[in-house]
Amino acid sequence: MPITLKTVDPDFEAGFVRMLSAKREGATDVNDSVAAIIADVRARGDAALCELTARFDRLDLPADRLRFSAAEIAEQTALVPAEDRAALTLAAERIRAYHARQMPEDVSWTDPEGATLGWRWTPVSAAGLYVPGGQAAYPSSVLMNAIPARVAGVERLVICVPTPDGAVSPLVLLAAQLSGIDEIYRVGGAQAIAALAYGTATIAPVDKITGPGNAYVAAAKRQVFGRVGIDMIAGPSEVLVIAEGPQNPEWLALDLLAQAEHDADAQSILIATDEALAHAVAGAVDRLLPTLPRAEIAGASWRDHGTIIVARDLDEAADLSNRIAPEHLELCVENPEALAARCVHAGAIFLGAHTPEAVGDYVSGPNHVLPTARSARFSSGLSVLDFLKRTTLARLTPGALARIGPAAVRLASAEGLHAHGASVEARLAMLNDRGTE
Amino acid sequence: MPITLKTVDPDFEAGFVRMLSAKREGATDVNDSVAAIIADVRARGDAALCELTARFDRLDLPADRLRFSAAEIAEQTALVPAEDRAALTLAAERIRAYHARQMPEDVSWTDPEGATLGWRWTPVSAAGLYVPGGQAAYPSSVLMNAIPARVAGVERLVICVPTPDGAVSPLVLLAAQLSGIDEIYRVGGAQAIAALAYGTATIAPVDKITGPGNAYVAAAKRQVFGRVGIDMIAGPSEVLVIAEGPQNPEWLALDLLAQAEHDADAQSILIATDEALAHAVAGAVDRLLPTLPRAEIAGASWRDHGTIIVARDLDEAADLSNRIAPEHLELCVENPEALAARCVHAGAIFLGAHTPEAVGDYVSGPNHVLPTARSARFSSGLSVLDFLKRTTLARLTPGALARIGPAAVRLASAEGLHAHGASVEARLAMLNDRGTE
Repeated sequence: MPITLKTVDPDFEAGFVRMLSAKREGATDVNDSVAAIIADVRARGDAALCELTARFDRLDLPADRLRFSAAEIAEQTALVPAEDRAALTLAAERIRAYHARQMPEDVSWTDPEGATLGWRWTPVSAAGLYVPGGQAAYPSSVLMNAIPARVAGVERLVICVPTPDGAVSPLVLLAAQLSGIDEIYRVGGAQAIAALAYGTATIAPVDKITGPGNAYVAAAKRQVFGRVGIDMIAGPSEVLVIAEGPQNPEWLALDLLAQAEHDADAQSILIATDEALAHAVAGAVDRLLPTLPRAEIAGASWRDHGTIIVARDLDEAADLSNRIAPEHLELCVENPEALAARCVHAGAIFLGAHTPEAVGDYVSGPNHVLPTARSARFSSGLSVLDFLKRTTLARLTPGALARIGPAAVRLASAEGLHAHGASVEARLAMLNDRGTE
Repeated sequence: MPITLKTVDPDFEAGFVRMLSAKREGATDVNDSVAAIIADVRARGDAALCELTARFDRLDLPADRLRFSAAEIAEQTALVPAEDRAALTLAAERIRAYHARQMPEDVSWTDPEGATLGWRWTPVSAAGLYVPGGQAAYPSSVLMNAIPARVAGVERLVICVPTPDGAVSPLVLLAAQLSGIDEIYRVGGAQAIAALAYGTATIAPVDKITGPGNAYVAAAKRQVFGRVGIDMIAGPSEVLVIAEGPQNPEWLALDLLAQAEHDADAQSILIATDEALAHAVAGAVDRLLPTLPRAEIAGASWRDHGTIIVARDLDEAADLSNRIAPEHLELCVENPEALAARCVHAGAIFLGAHTPEAVGDYVSGPNHVLPTARSARFSSGLSVLDFLKRTTLARLTPGALARIGPAAVRLASAEGLHAHGASVEARLAMLNDRGTE
């Protein structure tokens, strides 16, 4: 049974805070084993990669077979049914179109003092994309990570994907192909992250690593952060559905269950302004849950983390939403735009009852890699900006230096940085000499 | 003596790689003590803060005096000489003007399928700025961190600054005042970061923490990352000066020394296409070094990390610059714009001989918080974007769902996520029913 909270109840605040602060992830500390794996890959390169792949994925390959050959990729992608291929192609096109609009522009201007200022965006040279293997092989994740990188202009894009017992996902390879990636290695876990960060004879190092993974992958990304850039460390996924007015309870129930079926740590929350609707949705969840192939996972998530909140009105719902800062926020209300304006902390907002979160996972266009665990308070989903960096530019004329330089000299002196001041003064002296010539 | 390398020499590559991979920072592992401090602040709140402040800063204050009072701030800032105040005000205005241009726009469009897509930027609600205390109290850093946050629209801005033995920097308080910050706590170290991340009775928690600090502060920021957002973990600072043609050797020498005087781990690199110029600059460094108040620090940096490279031409210089990915890049050449276009990995570029890096530290306008230790390969300097997050938006009409929904159903099925598909199908079924009515 999910928790049900009503904002009119005197103990609501306590229950809400308990829900907010509940830990959903088991805290397995794998830092030491991950550090050992990274050190091993740094020290022994390919030999370590091959050994670790044999141990963890039960796959015994020489280093020169770690990379998928063009023939293997062609053979596997040919297995994908035409309808799946069409669906994946549509998804790729829509994701590309959305992310193309994110490309920022370079800017330059000259201010009244004579300083020409601005900035310039350039892509990361090489990026590595981690793709989980086995059961959780999601081709949609390949598109969501690879396409923004491609749009940003990243020259070299690499995928590492484990193939436990040799199991390959043809759709993952097709998604890579649709994203224009042909450098794909069957390496997973912390060893893949180590190889991407430090390089081996077979895998050249990259500058940025993105993509989801298990606790080992997450810990490895944390440990190599600084040596390379990383995207966020994703936690368990969550959805908040805010509903008011006449709604189809089954639709909402399926949206909650779609989140719950991801994994047992996922969280589905409903805020309804109407107790009858809340009951109807809860009833629909109970009815539909047993029909799901992943009923066990979804059931555990709903039982342990599912939450139904009955709020007085949408203002209150928006306030609660801002405290939750949900990864996914679905607004099934009469005027979703007005409510969206009040929900300021959310990874992605789905407006109206005909925008189920599941279309966002695949085909609507925005990225499905989004901030979890309340981190939408301070971070954003994946975008082309994750594969770009900004260089600031400044050019001063002698006149501009004469006008603003003295302030720099003064501040350098206040901060006790003499050479800073002297580097400006030497130039100013020359300008003054010229001025008096 | 700094290393001197010539690209024409056969052993250049080995020497260059050695220089690139040399560790400049001592690897003091303070993770365990930092973890203990964070746990203590989480468990005991203000009591821990006061105890740790007494221990590390030799300052015994009750919790209600940790915050600077308005009277104290007024009293301290009144001590600032008028010229310093004017210089700091000019710097604040120029930094504000530059960062105001960085504000990104919200975007929304409707595509041919009937999906209204876009994104929206909103500020982080509360940000904490760490300011180092004692000798390394830099008012310019306060401006560089606080003003982008203000421009982004952050509602609550807090400063934590240690005051060892009670020493307060009037200029730091003035910089805070010019940035519109009046919530300032005399707390430093890992305990300040813990308080900002988790909150105590006195210090309410924030969502994002930025600002430089010592090894304890850096480790604490790493450890609270995820709970809150952080900016980068800054390493020792570096400058690369590329010079060609007639140049004033003293100017270049002072620019190299300005970097070197920051700390003994800082690195100053000169690439010249002309051996005579390289010699002249090296000679000027030797002449000017003893005249600096911080000669000991600058001398150690120059001796241990200073590097002079003689390159064949500017193409070669640009290639080397891209491998170095310098934090600061000064282009003292005839056509700096052309060379800048080829230098694609750099935190900030200073074009022409009248744009010394030191003006960028204070008054030119761009941020001086920049990626160090080769991280300009994948990251950017501080900007308003660090205090904003992006929410993606999607709204589908029933028609749009009818057109793109089936592809989502197909992909959900391929990924084994039944409820995802069902949540779309339930809506499609209703649309079909309506269509056949």
